[in-house]
Amino acid sequence: MREVFHQSLEDVQNRLVEIAGLVTVAIDKATRAFEASDVALAEEVIEEDAVIDDKATALDELAIEILARQQPVARDLRIVVSALRMSASLERMGDIAEHIAQLTRMRFPERAIPKGLKSTFTKMGKLDTEVARRLTELLRTEDLTLVEEIRNFDDKLDDLHVSVFEKVLSDSWQGDPSATVDATLASRYHERFADHAVSVAKKVLYLSTGDWMVHTDTIELPLADQPG
Amino acid sequence: MREVFHQSLEDVQNRLVEIAGLVTVAIDKATRAFEASDVALAEEVIEEDAVIDDKATALDELAIEILARQQPVARDLRIVVSALRMSASLERMGDIAEHIAQLTRMRFPERAIPKGLKSTFTKMGKLDTEVARRLTELLRTEDLTLVEEIRNFDDKLDDLHVSVFEKVLSDSWQGDPSATVDATLASRYHERFADHAVSVAKKVLYLSTGDWMVHTDTIELPLADQPG
Repeated sequence: MREVFHQSLEDVQNRLVEIAGLVTVAIDKATRAFEASDVALAEEVIEEDAVIDDKATALDELAIEILARQQPVARDLRIVVSALRMSASLERMGDIAEHIAQLTRMRFPERAIPKGLKSTFTKMGKLDTEVARRLTELLRTEDLTLVEEIRNFDDKLDDLHVSVFEKVLSDSWQGDPSATVDATLASRYHERFADHAVSVAKKVLYLSTGDWMVHTDTIELPLADQPG
Repeated sequence: MREVFHQSLEDVQNRLVEIAGLVTVAIDKATRAFEASDVALAEEVIEEDAVIDDKATALDELAIEILARQQPVARDLRIVVSALRMSASLERMGDIAEHIAQLTRMRFPERAIPKGLKSTFTKMGKLDTEVARRLTELLRTEDLTLVEEIRNFDDKLDDLHVSVFEKVLSDSWQGDPSATVDATLASRYHERFADHAVSVAKKVLYLSTGDWMVHTDTIELPLADQPG
């Protein structure tokens, strides 16, 4: 039973890594499409998001099957429940990549990236892609030094997000309302993407370091309380 | 065991209803604060969001405890897993109410609600509050006619969201960049709030009608496969 469970967990982990890899491809393409007004690349991202959604749903079904079949407790249970949450965050990251691609498509053949903010959004796009890459690596290797790196990138993205609003609200801003809308939405998407990554990274950290142990009292139960 | 499980489920349901009730208060206050530039009311929403977060965390812990202690399978398992997801959506709805309150505070003593969009945002605020109210009622009564009502309100919110962008991008738009940013963010928050409500409502519907049964094959297992 124990070995079966560990094979199942490996399967869960492999699927999380796979989905994170697809999300990395999506955000890389989406941010490059946004920067270059490449509508064909944007279309790819929009089309491929369904694959991420399907894989997240399949992972959820696997996690529920593991809960039903193997009835894990304590740390094992926390791992499976966390997988459900990480899958939801990764799916949402895929949605955000799709939103950035949709902005690109909506403005085409105009540039979606507002004038005067090109270098800011180029930085944000690269940071988001690096965040996704490191998150994939974290899920694969459980190398916890990556958590801090992801957090640092997120801090940089927060600063850039603030700088977009400073720019848009400054006297020097020449953009029309359409550029202002695009800057606002695109900046928020770029910033939220990394927030979700931090949320996944924190779960990996908690599971590895046992920070969730504060709650363990309530779930370590005498065997007599368990069915069978 | 069975009776204990049903008491636990009742506890889960009561807590979901309680959190949805708090979210209803939050969105009602936040949208009224936004409309009236009432910074004191906005502060209340910001302060009270921590209560929603704490209650959502406590519900998650209860759900995990039920999984560990009572090891439900099949439909019972789906209910507990769904509660985890509903709790996440409700918590997010609370965050969105807080974001609307933060917009109000950020612009004070100026009005956060952009000129020319007052009636639109008043409508959006009322719809979001009605959505939250009906969601609370749905969780309490499982009256499935409410699902359709929530969906209809969500459709109206989507239409209003589109109309905000049409207005902002029209030649008649007189707003400065700050008004454009506010309209964009506020409209997106109002629209996302209802999306999360629809997501929760759908889960109640699935659990009640058994639409999730399509996947049941994979979790209905012979007893021999279960521990104990």
